[in-house]
Parts: sequence; structure tokens; C-alpha cells
Amino acid sequence: MQLHTYFRSSAAYRVRIALALKGLAWDPAYVHLLKDGGQQKAPSYRTVNPQGLVPTLVDGDAVIPQSLAILEYLEERHPTPALLPADPAGRAKARAMALAIVADIHPLNNLRVLTYLRGTLGQGEEAVKAWIVHWTAEGFAALEQMAEGPDFCIGRAPSFADLCLVPQMFNARRFGVDLTPYPKLVAIDGHCQALPAFQAAAPGRQGDAE
Amino acid sequence: MQLHTYFRSSAAYRVRIALALKGLAWDPAYVHLLKDGGQQKAPSYRTVNPQGLVPTLVDGDAVIPQSLAILEYLEERHPTPALLPADPAGRAKARAMALAIVADIHPLNNLRVLTYLRGTLGQGEEAVKAWIVHWTAEGFAALEQMAEGPDFCIGRAPSFADLCLVPQMFNARRFGVDLTPYPKLVAIDGHCQALPAFQAAAPGRQGDAE
Repeated sequence: MQLHTYFRSSAAYRVRIALALKGLAWDPAYVHLLKDGGQQKAPSYRTVNPQGLVPTLVDGDAVIPQSLAILEYLEERHPTPALLPADPAGRAKARAMALAIVADIHPLNNLRVLTYLRGTLGQGEEAVKAWIVHWTAEGFAALEQMAEGPDFCIGRAPSFADLCLVPQMFNARRFGVDLTPYPKLVAIDGHCQALPAFQAAAPGRQGDAE
Repeated sequence: MQLHTYFRSSAAYRVRIALALKGLAWDPAYVHLLKDGGQQKAPSYRTVNPQGLVPTLVDGDAVIPQSLAILEYLEERHPTPALLPADPAGRAKARAMALAIVADIHPLNNLRVLTYLRGTLGQGEEAVKAWIVHWTAEGFAALEQMAEGPDFCIGRAPSFADLCLVPQMFNARRFGVDLTPYPKLVAIDGHCQALPAFQAAAPGRQGDAE
């Protein structure tokens, strides 16, 4: 399998954790989001991923964009270890927490949106930082209530929810978001970070890290 | 089952289509997104949905937020008719198209974000409309390439992709987005709109329609 990835992309980071937890080998294809005006916008990459976003997983003939679609695909093709609870209600909880990040925090704070705020809307760095903090805090407040624990977001094994939470916590720290209102999330993040698979997937451990 | 819904919420609309296609009965619990300063923000609703967003599906003990988590739950509990293709690669395509809407178009253009643009960032209606058109056009351009057809987004049966596309097309028309660059999406939308389940789920057919 080949993963089109960028070390600091939190969407790619989610997939790298899944691949590591499932013990699947993969080759990186690096897409630098800042160099050359953004390599993800190049016509050659758009043929792989029409949205011009990372990650994309290539597995034989299957070319799959969207991190959560990739997680579901890996779960169907390589079900062990499971990254969703066994019961439908538990699976729904894990997916809902993942989506609260994937749909309601991350897309508001990713590079293309911040570029639009700075460029087209002429916002300064203070307003851009306030925007990032606002949407992260709103999402984390809900996630703090939704997290069940005791070790991970849902129970005693990592699920899609944790795979999405850890990269978002990384982003939150990078942007200086105050995490003290979210003690459960901080504890879950710490529990995840102790596992080798989460460590291997971290931005600083990638071949394209700067 | 009970669905917390608002007639014009495109996320609730997705779920209403799934329930109709699967022939499942449900009771509406109306959440008016504008009245009372937004009923979705009321503490009583936050106990159901910590994010303060619609929809939420209640099925016995299971209380499920996030439209795509609800679609996956319904698919697992009520697999016929299937709303995902049978093969993992096809399922991944349908999910990726759904997520290109759920994660990369809709969250940028929903009420809470437009309110922030108008309020905190002091943007006028022209800038807000340009914002909506920009993210819709960027997403639809990718979806136009990803759509396989011949009848629906993927093949000859509706999938999650179509359940997300139709409400987003409804929004696009409401906001005056030019749809002529997306003939495949317009044709798929027309094909869907001819089906009774899609008609029954439409905003104008809901008990809280205005």
C-alpha cells in the first residue's frame, strides 16, 4: 500500500496510526503542502485526489481519498485488531466522536481555510488564531462530555475516535489552545501516546518531517 | 426511533432520506435552529447532543449524533436495502464522496460558521455569499470528477454519496450557486429527486416546514 502523506497533516496522521495499529506495511508518497505553491494542488496529484487534499491511500486498483473513508476501508479489509467497538451503539459513539473532529473541527482550521481568511478576507494573525481556538474549544467541550474512558474515548481499546483525537490534540498544542478545560481528553491522549503505534505515526517521526 | 430534526438542516435531510429508503418509521422531535436564539443551544438539547447540532437519532438506549454515524448505524442495524456498494473499494468511493460533502463543504457553510463570519469577523452579506459559493464550487468540482454514474454517484443504486449530495444541491440552489459546471451532479440529483423516498425527506415536506 502507498499513502500520500504530509508529516503535519492531521488527516494523514489518523491513517498512519491505523496502519501502525493494524501492523500494515506502507510506502510513503510525500506531498508537501507548502512547497511549489502546494504540491497537493498540482494537476498530477489531482488525478489521484480530485479534491487536492491529503491523505490518499492506494491499495492495488483502489485509490481512496478522505481519511475516514480510508479508516473504514482498512477496518473492512484488515479487521484485526478492530478499531471500532463490536456493538452497533458503541460503533456509532466512536464514529460520532471521530466525526465531531473530522467534520466539525478540522475542516474549519485546515490550511486552505486559514489561507482564505488571511487572503480573501484580509484577517490578521490574531483573528486567525482566535478562529482556530474558537472552533477547537467548541468541539473539545463536546468531546469532553462524549468521552467515556476509562482508557480511551470508548472503553479499553483505541477506536476511530482516538485516531482522530490525538492528531487534533497535536494541532491544538501547536496553535496554543488551552487544554486545561479538557482533563479527560488530555488523559486519553496521554494513554494513546504511550503506545508504539501512536508514536510511530507522529509527525516528528516521518521521513518528510522538518 | 426518534429523530431530532430541522426541516432545512441538510445533515438531518441526509438521515431522513436513509430512513425513507429503508422504510423505517420515526417520530420527529423538532429543533428550531433560529427560534429562541437557537433551540439546538438549549441545555436540555445539549444533554441529547453535546455539540448542540442536529440531527440526533434516538433508538432505544442509543443516542447518536452526527449524520454519517447515524447512516452507518442504520446500515448495520437495517442492512436492506443496502446504501453502500458490496465491495470494499466501492464502499470506500461512496464514503469518500459523502465525506467530501460532510467534512469539506457543509461544515464551512453551516449556520454557526456564517454567524461567526457576520458577527465576530464583521463580514457583509456579499462576502458571506462569496464564502459559501467558494467552498461549494471547490467541493462540487471534485465531486463532478469522482461521480461514476450512470444513475447515481456510484452505479445503479443510491448510496451514502447520493444521500449527502441531494441536500447539498438543495443548499447550493438556495444560495444561488451556479450549477452549470456540474452536469453529472445535476443529472444524479434529478435521478434521486424522482424517487418517492427522496421526495418524502425533502425540507418542504416536513412537519416543521415554513
